[in-house]
Amino acid sequence: MQTIFRGKHFITLQEWTKEEIDTLLDVSYDLKRKFAMGIPTPYLRDKTIFLMFFEQSTRTRNSMETGITQLGGHANYLDTSTMQVAHGEVAKDTAIILSRYGHAIACRNCFWGIGNKYLREMAKWATVPVINMQDDLYHPLQAIADLMTMQEKRGDLRKAKVSVIWAYATTHKKPISVPVSQVLLFPRYGMDVTLAYPEGYDLPDWVIEQAKENAEKNGGSLKITHDQEEAYRDADVVFPKNWGSWVTNQSTEVIDDLLQKYQGWKCTEKMMQLASKDVLYMHALPADRGNEVEDSVIDGPHSVVYDEAENRLHTAKAVMTLTMGGR
Amino acid sequence: MQTIFRGKHFITLQEWTKEEIDTLLDVSYDLKRKFAMGIPTPYLRDKTIFLMFFEQSTRTRNSMETGITQLGGHANYLDTSTMQVAHGEVAKDTAIILSRYGHAIACRNCFWGIGNKYLREMAKWATVPVINMQDDLYHPLQAIADLMTMQEKRGDLRKAKVSVIWAYATTHKKPISVPVSQVLLFPRYGMDVTLAYPEGYDLPDWVIEQAKENAEKNGGSLKITHDQEEAYRDADVVFPKNWGSWVTNQSTEVIDDLLQKYQGWKCTEKMMQLASKDVLYMHALPADRGNEVEDSVIDGPHSVVYDEAENRLHTAKAVMTLTMGGR
Amino acid sequence: MQTIFRGKHFITLQEWTKEEIDTLLDVSYDLKRKFAMGIPTPYLRDKTIFLMFFEQSTRTRNSMETGITQLGGHANYLDTSTMQVAHGEVAKDTAIILSRYGHAIACRNCFWGIGNKYLREMAKWATVPVINMQDDLYHPLQAIADLMTMQEKRGDLRKAKVSVIWAYATTHKKPISVPVSQVLLFPRYGMDVTLAYPEGYDLPDWVIEQAKENAEKNGGSLKITHDQEEAYRDADVVFPKNWGSWVTNQSTEVIDDLLQKYQGWKCTEKMMQLASKDVLYMHALPADRGNEVEDSVIDGPHSVVYDEAENRLHTAKAVMTLTMGGR
Repeated sequence: MQTIFRGKHFITLQEWTKEEIDTLLDVSYDLKRKFAMGIPTPYLRDKTIFLMFFEQSTRTRNSMETGITQLGGHANYLDTSTMQVAHGEVAKDTAIILSRYGHAIACRNCFWGIGNKYLREMAKWATVPVINMQDDLYHPLQAIADLMTMQEKRGDLRKAKVSVIWAYATTHKKPISVPVSQVLLFPRYGMDVTLAYPEGYDLPDWVIEQAKENAEKNGGSLKITHDQEEAYRDADVVFPKNWGSWVTNQSTEVIDDLLQKYQGWKCTEKMMQLASKDVLYMHALPADRGNEVEDSVIDGPHSVVYDEAENRLHTAKAVMTLTMGGR
Repeated sequence: MQTIFRGKHFITLQEWTKEEIDTLLDVSYDLKRKFAMGIPTPYLRDKTIFLMFFEQSTRTRNSMETGITQLGGHANYLDTSTMQVAHGEVAKDTAIILSRYGHAIACRNCFWGIGNKYLREMAKWATVPVINMQDDLYHPLQAIADLMTMQEKRGDLRKAKVSVIWAYATTHKKPISVPVSQVLLFPRYGMDVTLAYPEGYDLPDWVIEQAKENAEKNGGSLKITHDQEEAYRDADVVFPKNWGSWVTNQSTEVIDDLLQKYQGWKCTEKMMQLASKDVLYMHALPADRGNEVEDSVIDGPHSVVYDEAENRLHTAKAVMTLTMGGR
Repeated sequence: MQTIFRGKHFITLQEWTKEEIDTLLDVSYDLKRKFAMGIPTPYLRDKTIFLMFFEQSTRTRNSMETGITQLGGHANYLDTSTMQVAHGEVAKDTAIILSRYGHAIACRNCFWGIGNKYLREMAKWATVPVINMQDDLYHPLQAIADLMTMQEKRGDLRKAKVSVIWAYATTHKKPISVPVSQVLLFPRYGMDVTLAYPEGYDLPDWVIEQAKENAEKNGGSLKITHDQEEAYRDADVVFPKNWGSWVTNQSTEVIDDLLQKYQGWKCTEKMMQLASKDVLYMHALPADRGNEVEDSVIDGPHSVVYDEAENRLHTAKAVMTLTMGGR
């Protein structure tokens, strides 16, 4: 078990060793049990985490804000309308000054080509941990909650068939950060990951290369297919979710044409029947009901979306406890 | 004295027995005294209440947020601009997920024909108490503060003449939730309630029926008049306040014509002279000074509006303490 | 040492005696050391300070919100979009009701000719301390942080040459509250203050008179010049910062013409070479880089802007601790 986390940035899980992630999960389970039992966990009493949002959020904000409250601390909520960050304050100044005032800086910045760079620039100057609440490339808080949920439901995940599947949505242009984080993380736990999407929705090459390397080192695998049914067949877990085409990100027309054509990429009961009989349906929420997924699936017996959403709380609390407090 | 409140919804006072409301008042007095004495009341340490606002608020937000702070907990403020609720997240999902994260969900949603239904839909799925911070039909947090204030000033309220009086305002289209909650609650404490308004501003039939039934069971009465002076004459308490015409809610022109005609419905010193010499002037604030009421009345010796506003704090704390904590 | 502060308003430092300001600084140093050592300072446990913002803020909001958190209390953040204050609630009502709910009212209102009056109107009715987070005339929280920083770096400030220098900015129309507060405060600590600006940017006459009186009583001095170089020459501390022309506040055209003409009023390395070899460069941040100051100065060895920003936290905590808590 790793024990030194204080001050460690949480920008990608790739920069955390598997042993560190195991500790993170162990702490998450401990905090979850204490929450169920009503045992106080004031490990960060009167400490402040800044929550900087360049985009709206529900799940992330609420899990972080209730989480730090349960740890005895306080979330200082900053959105772009109340930040001078928006007009002119450079990341360096923000990072240095917030480091002087509080105990961690969490940030969501999904602007394409900017978000992750902004977080890394802050991390360079911050003297407190910088926590990624989603950027243009990564969403580690979602990926760790997904992993915890699968582990709770299935135990050992080695050789489990887990499919990350593109789905049609009218509320498109969703970031690629969720599938990127999933295909990078899951093979490290020995899963056989299938990544399925229509042509034109590839993830960046370096993601695939890194994911394959992760698989090789840890006994997992990564397979790419453009056949939806192949991804559902015998799957133990499915993650059908829309993401935007980062390749054609600049040319809106092309992407919209592509999108229209792929309305058939939907998680239906029929598709679910191809999967393992205990298959888990998962989604980061909010789902585009009727487009990404049929109501009967997301509200049905295979769906664990509320447990998955709840685990956002416990894992977020674990990240804060370890990086802001700790020994 | 009732002692089992944990998890109980607070959507209308009609659904709370008189004995339960008595306990609520008893707890309010206790919390008020402790506040005056500076005795800590950390009964909800590190617990979160979500405050969902579909409309602006001052009194309600501030009383709830300082209230939960004095109880050791935290208010997670959500407005529609920062909630995905606004675009697409259904009440069911919101209720289930916020229940997983925090300890109560308070909501203000005054949209006509929608607000109360939204709260009840959340209550159906929530596993934590749902607290009504005003909807299209009810405003129980205001009504209970009004009751507490009258009780403090007058003691036994049986046979007191209490008049709920429509008043002209330029900032019109105010919800009917305040007068509805008042005429339902006050007769339960044996008051003789007079409801006065110009024609066209009736409250819904089912409200009047329910209020009369409440009166009958508890020794109070409800009288309706369209004569303003009758309402003021010998009154012990007056609540002159604007409300919109729910009947003609869809046809703005009609309601505006009506309104213009009734500028005379104003709480003046002259009107107050018709009342009992110790009459109390009350208002939920902010008042439309010069229209609803003359300055000399609201700033005068009969006005208890600041005490009434203060009691919003103590009663809100009582509601939270009992429903979120408790035995 | 003064010991009775509870309930005292903090609107201008002019209304605090030098002995009271010394206590404020003493408490600031104590809180800063405890923060460095990780010693808890829960002196305002579960108390609420309202933060009313009529204008955006970063430094002030963050220092106040993390500050009250570190003191165990809670900041109730109110901006005009979520306050009924914006439409119609009078200062009197706001002050009385917030006094009933919480433990202090802090306010930023920089509207010219309005801000300070609004704060004083609230102070007239409030039964809790009113704290000025910047108005049209004063910014005492900035001035006290500046004083603390100079004291930390230089010790005894008597006879130090401190220059408050106008600087060009494209983000102009900045309030005069910072230079006004500085020229009033610094002479009280025996400094030789030079106020330098191009013609048309005078501070009000009563400010200069008061500042001179302060100087006379305390062994300091105030000199006014329109020669930038004179202000830099042999200076121990420089504060180059833009402020708007309050005289021509109503006539935008005139002020813009003036402004354009004075692009040369910039803090450059060349200017800094005229100053004392240990000169401190200070700025309230955010600075207009490239206009007010060259990057090589603000990022260079003389700059103490981050320490100055940090001291906003410690001094704000001292103000809250003394006025909201205390004996």
